[in-house]
Amino acid sequence: MIHNFNAGPSHLPAEVLEEAQKAIINFKGSGLSILEIGHRTPLFEESVAEARALVRELMQLDDDHEVLFLHGGATTQFMQVPMNLLDADETMHIAHTGVWSKKAIREASCFGKVNILCSSENNNFNYIPEDFCVPESGKYFHITSNNTIYGTQWHRIPESPIPLVADMSSDILSRRIDFNAFELIYAGAQKNIGVAGATLVVVNKKLLGNVTRDIPPIMDYREHIKANSMLNTPPVFAIYMSLLTLRWLKKFGGIEAIEPLNKEKAALLYDAIDNSSLFRGTAKKEDRSTMNVSFVATNSGAEKAFLDFAKQKDIYGIKGHRLVGGFRASLYNAVSLESVKHLISVIKEFESGYNG
Amino acid sequence: MIHNFNAGPSHLPAEVLEEAQKAIINFKGSGLSILEIGHRTPLFEESVAEARALVRELMQLDDDHEVLFLHGGATTQFMQVPMNLLDADETMHIAHTGVWSKKAIREASCFGKVNILCSSENNNFNYIPEDFCVPESGKYFHITSNNTIYGTQWHRIPESPIPLVADMSSDILSRRIDFNAFELIYAGAQKNIGVAGATLVVVNKKLLGNVTRDIPPIMDYREHIKANSMLNTPPVFAIYMSLLTLRWLKKFGGIEAIEPLNKEKAALLYDAIDNSSLFRGTAKKEDRSTMNVSFVATNSGAEKAFLDFAKQKDIYGIKGHRLVGGFRASLYNAVSLESVKHLISVIKEFESGYNG
Repeated sequence: MIHNFNAGPSHLPAEVLEEAQKAIINFKGSGLSILEIGHRTPLFEESVAEARALVRELMQLDDDHEVLFLHGGATTQFMQVPMNLLDADETMHIAHTGVWSKKAIREASCFGKVNILCSSENNNFNYIPEDFCVPESGKYFHITSNNTIYGTQWHRIPESPIPLVADMSSDILSRRIDFNAFELIYAGAQKNIGVAGATLVVVNKKLLGNVTRDIPPIMDYREHIKANSMLNTPPVFAIYMSLLTLRWLKKFGGIEAIEPLNKEKAALLYDAIDNSSLFRGTAKKEDRSTMNVSFVATNSGAEKAFLDFAKQKDIYGIKGHRLVGGFRASLYNAVSLESVKHLISVIKEFESGYNG
Repeated sequence: MIHNFNAGPSHLPAEVLEEAQKAIINFKGSGLSILEIGHRTPLFEESVAEARALVRELMQLDDDHEVLFLHGGATTQFMQVPMNLLDADETMHIAHTGVWSKKAIREASCFGKVNILCSSENNNFNYIPEDFCVPESGKYFHITSNNTIYGTQWHRIPESPIPLVADMSSDILSRRIDFNAFELIYAGAQKNIGVAGATLVVVNKKLLGNVTRDIPPIMDYREHIKANSMLNTPPVFAIYMSLLTLRWLKKFGGIEAIEPLNKEKAALLYDAIDNSSLFRGTAKKEDRSTMNVSFVATNSGAEKAFLDFAKQKDIYGIKGHRLVGGFRASLYNAVSLESVKHLISVIKEFESGYNG
């Protein structure tokens, strides 16, 4: 068994993979593959409806919030959000906490004014900015709720007098949070929702229709809402994988049940790192992510040796992002406590045998 | 066995589905699912490279043409193409041959001027316009090479003094054609390329960089080319399915081998319809598509009866689009001659027993 700590695409529950495999040959007893079936058939339409309803239920969304499964990944949302929300002479404020907010800034600059309200760039994004005040004058305030690369996470929703928008790609559905406090949330599916190729958008419909530009229809959230998230041929299989993963989470007990497990996994791993003489975490302690644990070797020579050792021990995907270096263990919902304990034992075993 | 004539998503070769099923559990012997593996790992990067190379080989593209696998479906291309190619004060010309060109017109109108150079709207799009001349003044000329809903197809590439752009979603890879005569080709993958969720774009790189707007990077073809078609997390599984389907086509003998089979399938079915007293084709004979055969019952009472009868005979996906009514049999590359012969025998059987 391989212990997959990849940052995304990432580990999926075994039962989800088994269901997927069945659907590749025979989707819901239709005799057809999920890959061949028409997306406008009731069999698939009810899958989309169920997936949207599960998101609504798991996130406890109010009636103003609409749930969409779109193409394009979160990077497309970096563009689509300002296209829908920001006029050329208006300003959006953003917390700049890493590579993803940088991309969001760049895309938004094509549509309106972008004000970097706060930033943690001065320390390689290893913390979440604190001393800032969101002005009333802006159109919206954008945060990246969890920074996959740096292993930082917003543990409190910032106060904002203007609509809050969040890229929640790497921590959605992992913790109890008032999702209705956000007017727009988006997330690539390949971490806690399902697989690469689908993108979840949750948007307060009251926010829409307030820009003067002629929004290209395929990018207009209102068109997608009207079409029940089937404006064009959807990424059928990726949505089906989201459905299976959402069902798995519901069966597990929902966010309420997964949150304590996520906290336990992260606490165990951070504890092991903090008690290690060979490794240290890179993120500021108060801002550490429960989803992505970034750490480096205190002795740079140990880096390659540990990667090799971990590989021999069936650990996959722990090489850190080149911007931080070292290691990153992603502990998304589907990663088991057993896998985390295995990683900790491997860290300890390596350390005890290491004589650098 | 179900005979799948759906317009898209559509039938896939059995060996492609078998390979897909294996990869869901163990991708290339990695011990990881294709759904869980990191997209920046060599194992997946080589799949993307192979898929792009196969497109180049099968379409016999010259070195100026770049091959990209993107998110978003052809509908996103209706927007992305003018965003990249058309300045606000420039004009693109378009042949208006159905619902898809209508959407292409609407999306392009957000970016520049659109001139409907010719149209077959006066007869419910049942033919391909002939008497038109593409002016030299336009930025590009756009056609829909095959009109899925109406069953019409361009059998000759129109002469154009300006760059030719084609939506080839429903007939790409089905016939020998000089693909290099087009400066830009796009196609949703869910017909002849693979499954819903990936979009093929073939673009002459010399065409790019000729607009003044600040193109959002995620929509800029040049950025995707620079990033080897991996600008953001790609639709991993949908691209892998494209790879498997492209391999299957190559093994079959490529476009050269599939074209005569496609012609034979279409000829047999059109012949059966033309010789029927109960059914008639809807498209003008010279413009009939080899990919989508649209036909109606001459006796409207026979419509539901035939759909029911066909269903009993394990025929799936032949209900016509509501804009044309009646029936549509899609005969994409993977649809076997055996399935077409089965459909013909079902038509004949129904007709002989029908006493409306």
